[in-house]
Amino acid sequence: MTRSFRWICEATDGAARAGTLHTAHGPVQTPTFMPVGTVGTVKGMTMDAVRSTGAGIVLGNTYHLMLRPGAERVKQLGGLHRFMDWSGPILTDSGGFQVMSLGALRKLDQDGVTFRSHIDGSEHRLDPERSTAIQHALDATITMCFDECPALPAAPEAIAASMRLSMRWAGRSREAFVQREGYGQFGIVQGGVEPDLRAESVKALTDIGFEGYAIGGLAVGEGQELMFATLDVTTPLMPADAPRYLMGVGTPDDLLGSVQRGVDMFDCVMPTRAGRTARAYTERGHLNMRNARFATDSRPISPHCDCLACTRHSRAYLHHLFRANELLGPMLLTWHNLAYYQRLMRGIRAAIVDRTLDTHADHLRAEWAAGDWSEDEMPRPFIPPVP
Amino acid sequence: MTRSFRWICEATDGAARAGTLHTAHGPVQTPTFMPVGTVGTVKGMTMDAVRSTGAGIVLGNTYHLMLRPGAERVKQLGGLHRFMDWSGPILTDSGGFQVMSLGALRKLDQDGVTFRSHIDGSEHRLDPERSTAIQHALDATITMCFDECPALPAAPEAIAASMRLSMRWAGRSREAFVQREGYGQFGIVQGGVEPDLRAESVKALTDIGFEGYAIGGLAVGEGQELMFATLDVTTPLMPADAPRYLMGVGTPDDLLGSVQRGVDMFDCVMPTRAGRTARAYTERGHLNMRNARFATDSRPISPHCDCLACTRHSRAYLHHLFRANELLGPMLLTWHNLAYYQRLMRGIRAAIVDRTLDTHADHLRAEWAAGDWSEDEMPRPFIPPVP
Repeated sequence: MTRSFRWICEATDGAARAGTLHTAHGPVQTPTFMPVGTVGTVKGMTMDAVRSTGAGIVLGNTYHLMLRPGAERVKQLGGLHRFMDWSGPILTDSGGFQVMSLGALRKLDQDGVTFRSHIDGSEHRLDPERSTAIQHALDATITMCFDECPALPAAPEAIAASMRLSMRWAGRSREAFVQREGYGQFGIVQGGVEPDLRAESVKALTDIGFEGYAIGGLAVGEGQELMFATLDVTTPLMPADAPRYLMGVGTPDDLLGSVQRGVDMFDCVMPTRAGRTARAYTERGHLNMRNARFATDSRPISPHCDCLACTRHSRAYLHHLFRANELLGPMLLTWHNLAYYQRLMRGIRAAIVDRTLDTHADHLRAEWAAGDWSEDEMPRPFIPPVP
Repeated sequence: MTRSFRWICEATDGAARAGTLHTAHGPVQTPTFMPVGTVGTVKGMTMDAVRSTGAGIVLGNTYHLMLRPGAERVKQLGGLHRFMDWSGPILTDSGGFQVMSLGALRKLDQDGVTFRSHIDGSEHRLDPERSTAIQHALDATITMCFDECPALPAAPEAIAASMRLSMRWAGRSREAFVQREGYGQFGIVQGGVEPDLRAESVKALTDIGFEGYAIGGLAVGEGQELMFATLDVTTPLMPADAPRYLMGVGTPDDLLGSVQRGVDMFDCVMPTRAGRTARAYTERGHLNMRNARFATDSRPISPHCDCLACTRHSRAYLHHLFRANELLGPMLLTWHNLAYYQRLMRGIRAAIVDRTLDTHADHLRAEWAAGDWSEDEMPRPFIPPVP
């Protein structure tokens, strides 16, 4: 198997694509959801558990890792793969989004951003060259361009100026990127919800040329309708032979609608964060495991799930763990949510290959809307034997 | 294989015994350490992880489980084995020790104890009959007698009165116990550090007759020397053909010295609690993973350990997880500590079978005293491949 970095399209259904991303750290089937491992750990999960869900690629964060434990430290310890025990591909965010979120703690100039650490107040600087070097030190399989991401809503002039700054930074990021067999760098399309600006951004990035293209600056408060409308006018302009990554998205319904609009890759803290706050994602929508009705519910969270929570434990046990504030509650529910997200993506991929995505999407949405399984649909007691 | 409850002695070395405890839920090799699963979970561990350490029997708590989720609830959900996903034997504490620890929240009379829940202040009562019935509802493999456990130091008269009350309660507990094939009930020897009272207590319990005998009222502040002295005068009086369980003990050195004095079973929160506070137990004593010297240490916690932390991660990674307050830190270190405790007990058992326990004990103590492995003894870098 060659280790060159490339994305091969294997099937399409409408705008949706099924493919395989080949990297130095192995292949990933797309569409794919990337669990977020901000500081070198997917919160509450062992990497064996992450692997068991079928995840093919995980995300790390330049901003967090540069502050703690430090990119050079990770490099000395064998790189991020060795450090966190993940042999598959890793995509690292550039730090742009996190730094912008610091508000008063950061100062933007045309060259980069100076900011204070949220941990100890120490002063740091990120610019395209430094962000790229950090991602190299971490040994990221996919390096992201350092960009500026304004909060929406914002005036079109502000969005335009910000996008053009990001495009200049994309050029500098590309110059700083060291080509290595099987490694890639993604440019990030900006431009808010303005079709003209998105088009201008796509052109600027494709003129530079990257191994993949991300869509940034969405899911920042504009709502699903405007997000989808922006995808509708953006993805058709993007190269057909490169992977497309929608950053920081989203709910199961967001993922489905975005795949239907030609997106291949996603990341979001939603399934992991929800797992820590007792929210379970299922084929029938989401459940709050703290709800009193689960106290006596001997059924699994989902009858279709092969995660540890669903194969070995009742809803009543999960309810008990969250009521008692036991660590195992977030551990099991994060596992469940990531298993659901991966199962969702596998089902969507299979439907693209079968060219039945629209039917599959209708079915998924009808099930989400139907609400929790009734006792007729999933009878009690559901008590699997103890191993 | 018969399912009758019995302990078979397979080897002795001095006062130490190696044996097998046969139960309705399978056999357990002794000496054994029981991980504590207070509210139906070993904190921070999946039961698959607990199994992987080689643990053969775990502990649950009557007091905690009766308050949340409630013993009848657990019964409706298939019993504690099904609830927490543990098919092996479970020993349940009677609630006596926890209730006594409530201080002003409890009121003792000759029949039992009335107390207020530490969770919501609601009033509850435990007595020998109720405690035994709760443990039956939980489906405990080993039921403990409901006893009173005074804090040390206390006047001999107070210790004597408390012990005699516990012996009367032991008789009532025995009458309330429902004999079932493969299930057992343990009496609890009390009497503080007074040899005469311990002897009187052993006689009272053996007159009643139990499947096993516990030693309570130790490790409550008297110190290791007095604890060992009390064991020296107590275990020789206890039946040779029944298992002996020292409750709530202890450090690795406590376990070793107690096995040498004829104890077969232990439980303690130490390895699990330590795992949440960054303390790692090793063959070379304990390490605080927050210590700055581990920030760059690419070696495993212990070169002899097969836990997930030691086979896949560096000390530097553990250090990072604790500094970043990540859930995976307590998860991995609890796993490591339980793996160490189980490995310690397996080594002690093997030495008893070989009749080399004294030599083995000298070696263990010398290693604990030697301190952390030097760079010569465990060279860097230690970087196993990523799976």
